[in-house]
Amino acid sequence: MHRFTFVSKLLRQGTTIVSEKEEGLASHKLLLQSGILSVSSPGTFVLSPIALRVVDKLIAFIDYKMSEVGGQKCLFPTLGRSQLWVRSGRWEKFGGEMFRLKDRVGRSLCLQPTHEEEACEFVSNLDIGNSVLPLRIYQISSKFRDEIKPRLGLLRCREFLMKDMYSFDLDVRAAEKTYDALSNAYSDIFRTLRLPVLKVAAEGGLMGDCPSHEFHCPLPVGEDTLSVCPSCNEAILAANADSRMCPDCGLDRQTFKSIELAHCFLLGDKYTSNFNVKTTTQNGRKILQMGCYGIGVTRLLAAALEHFTASLVKENPPKELRWPSGFAPYSGAIALQKDNARDALSTDELNGVLAHFMELPSTSNSPTSGSTFFAGLLPRGDILVDDRPRLTLGRKLLDLRRLGVPWILIVKSRKGSVNSEYELVDVNRGGISFTASLDDVVAAFTRYDFQIPLPDICDHQYSRLWHENDTCR
Amino acid sequence: MHRFTFVSKLLRQGTTIVSEKEEGLASHKLLLQSGILSVSSPGTFVLSPIALRVVDKLIAFIDYKMSEVGGQKCLFPTLGRSQLWVRSGRWEKFGGEMFRLKDRVGRSLCLQPTHEEEACEFVSNLDIGNSVLPLRIYQISSKFRDEIKPRLGLLRCREFLMKDMYSFDLDVRAAEKTYDALSNAYSDIFRTLRLPVLKVAAEGGLMGDCPSHEFHCPLPVGEDTLSVCPSCNEAILAANADSRMCPDCGLDRQTFKSIELAHCFLLGDKYTSNFNVKTTTQNGRKILQMGCYGIGVTRLLAAALEHFTASLVKENPPKELRWPSGFAPYSGAIALQKDNARDALSTDELNGVLAHFMELPSTSNSPTSGSTFFAGLLPRGDILVDDRPRLTLGRKLLDLRRLGVPWILIVKSRKGSVNSEYELVDVNRGGISFTASLDDVVAAFTRYDFQIPLPDICDHQYSRLWHENDTCR
Repeated sequence: MHRFTFVSKLLRQGTTIVSEKEEGLASHKLLLQSGILSVSSPGTFVLSPIALRVVDKLIAFIDYKMSEVGGQKCLFPTLGRSQLWVRSGRWEKFGGEMFRLKDRVGRSLCLQPTHEEEACEFVSNLDIGNSVLPLRIYQISSKFRDEIKPRLGLLRCREFLMKDMYSFDLDVRAAEKTYDALSNAYSDIFRTLRLPVLKVAAEGGLMGDCPSHEFHCPLPVGEDTLSVCPSCNEAILAANADSRMCPDCGLDRQTFKSIELAHCFLLGDKYTSNFNVKTTTQNGRKILQMGCYGIGVTRLLAAALEHFTASLVKENPPKELRWPSGFAPYSGAIALQKDNARDALSTDELNGVLAHFMELPSTSNSPTSGSTFFAGLLPRGDILVDDRPRLTLGRKLLDLRRLGVPWILIVKSRKGSVNSEYELVDVNRGGISFTASLDDVVAAFTRYDFQIPLPDICDHQYSRLWHENDTCR
Repeated sequence: MHRFTFVSKLLRQGTTIVSEKEEGLASHKLLLQSGILSVSSPGTFVLSPIALRVVDKLIAFIDYKMSEVGGQKCLFPTLGRSQLWVRSGRWEKFGGEMFRLKDRVGRSLCLQPTHEEEACEFVSNLDIGNSVLPLRIYQISSKFRDEIKPRLGLLRCREFLMKDMYSFDLDVRAAEKTYDALSNAYSDIFRTLRLPVLKVAAEGGLMGDCPSHEFHCPLPVGEDTLSVCPSCNEAILAANADSRMCPDCGLDRQTFKSIELAHCFLLGDKYTSNFNVKTTTQNGRKILQMGCYGIGVTRLLAAALEHFTASLVKENPPKELRWPSGFAPYSGAIALQKDNARDALSTDELNGVLAHFMELPSTSNSPTSGSTFFAGLLPRGDILVDDRPRLTLGRKLLDLRRLGVPWILIVKSRKGSVNSEYELVDVNRGGISFTASLDDVVAAFTRYDFQIPLPDICDHQYSRLWHENDTCR
């Protein structure tokens, strides 16, 4: 029965909903109120089983997209030795944002906020041949920054999950090709999540001066401001805008608050020459060209959740969570009539319904089809069965909608009737009910596969911008 | 082509093998020499893509076994606030083994070496109902201990991956049932890995005095010593032995060096009363009974690797790695004839061979079958294709055997011949060659599914002990 998660057994907030003082994100308040997230210390959180399911789906999806561009996944340590950071000059430069500590014999260590130094040292020690170039290695792991003011839930944490890729290429031209490939992969990721994201030129900041681009999701609670031309859709950071006027078409640019989700850097040989990352070519030893590509995984989750929760739910403040299609913690829910009702299910009837879902997902077994299944997106436990014995169907519907489960099948006893139609609720479209066969329900529960093109259900004001802007650099 | 990993593109040690000064584990030296592991600072390592594949397989398998006992996976923060640790009395008790730091405003934090305090605080805040009991929550994450002397590679690190489960039950009897269920799940895990492991009564140590058991793998390099009766097979820690004589049968116990892989604690209400972890029952509010269950994931990997490498390979010191069945980084390899040989493959021939493996694994799609596939064990990239253009088949065989790939298919051009037989090398059985059809090869590559019972290929001196001892407490 690993196909199912039973609500009666699911770890979640046991008390009735309490008010939360947290300001800012509507979705974050809902996460806290439902116990999906729990504050540990300022800027650190416990991810409940529900939250971790979504994070794991996102990670599996990102892994899949990284494998498409030849990404090789590894794991660097969190504890970093000061020597490497001193060598790059960033031990000083990172300042108070870096968590520092000493071990029991007095050696200086840090909790690495990023891994350029470590990646260079690792690759340099391996003394790789150039057949492995372009080399694209990445990890997904906890990162640490001592934020002055952690805020907005998962948007600005002191401990967070980040995916960071480091690329090594033989020359500048090859490094630029990697930069394009990764920028496109990032755009693909945001497009698949159906998240409006704008790519903007940026400054290198703590990475050193170098070409770089950020990916921003327009959100009213955002900490950055974008300046976007309404005609040619070109976006820049408002801080970098010389005037409000678009230089190409002369129109006034519009400003939007936004959240940075990802950052690509064309680092050149700044780190590789420092750490002596070379390979042997016909013309002797050659310093490699480096790039760095980060996505804030927990931040991406928070931004997507806020975007869909705020834009798809018509209430203000919203009372129900909305996840990106295919990335809800559960693909669907089965709400059972309560035990003492006249039309309560017998054990046989319940088993008959559940048996229909046991073999899911019965997708194509081609590994190239890019289905959620092949990307390892947790087929186990993906159907939530609301089996709470004393709760009415109405109350179950309320709870499951609040959690943002996209489809809810309502199941009552048939008392031997052969009627094979059930009520299926489409939560993302405002809770519309359909009449459906169990096969229809199976199709719906597996429909939000990330590979399947869906009609655009996003009616957000920025949506018209987000498809055009992401191929240009 | 995500089914395949190409050796020419795989990040690995580029130089020829260098001698390593590292003492102790033969397998660890091989890991370092091949670049599968790389030292970052004393007791911290970079896991290369090859190493991470194995770790990810182990994690997926442990997740699967935890789901069988109702485990709910979550993620606790690494940064812990001192208050919780002061409250439990362990801020002092952990002493120098705990990494401590202060944030920019001077708050004391630690890198949590374990999460009893955090788990209690989390569950207490959720105010759970008792329908979710028995509650079994766990995480798999990096843990940190400031070891005085990190040694033996992944066996004693300062940063390592640990699976830690925390259980909450309504009463002592229920907590004991959880303890039995988890102890059995642990025995299952070691049995599936075909690793000899003995369960021994232990002391609570830093957890506080409570019933506890450790799971030990006999290894000559181990830091502990077990005393085992050769007749009744009962094992105890030598440190706890009053005499060398078995109290039951009077025989002299034998001693073995061993490594602790896992530890189960029946904590009672020591932490839950401190952190007020209660639920509401008919008789009012009731303090829950807690248990704690840890497996060192990277340590388990190291112990298994050392066990199989040292015991299955007849050379001393061994020159080839051996992984537990089903948990090698790649299920099989395809070694291609070099490009300039008379029987080099044409592109069409190569594609014809690879096409045979594209649809793998074509296993049953029942989620209850417990196949590696359904446990999410990385079907992507699981077949290594040794496509290095200038390397002879002999040299490729040497390399692939050194890496411990269990099956190697040797592929040369057929020049239009319809002979459908190939040479398949069974590395785990000492490199025996078979004549096999491609369908046989597909079957071999998918054979080391953890669910499939295999004949015992373990000829280690302790093997006869390890099946009997793991059900008793």
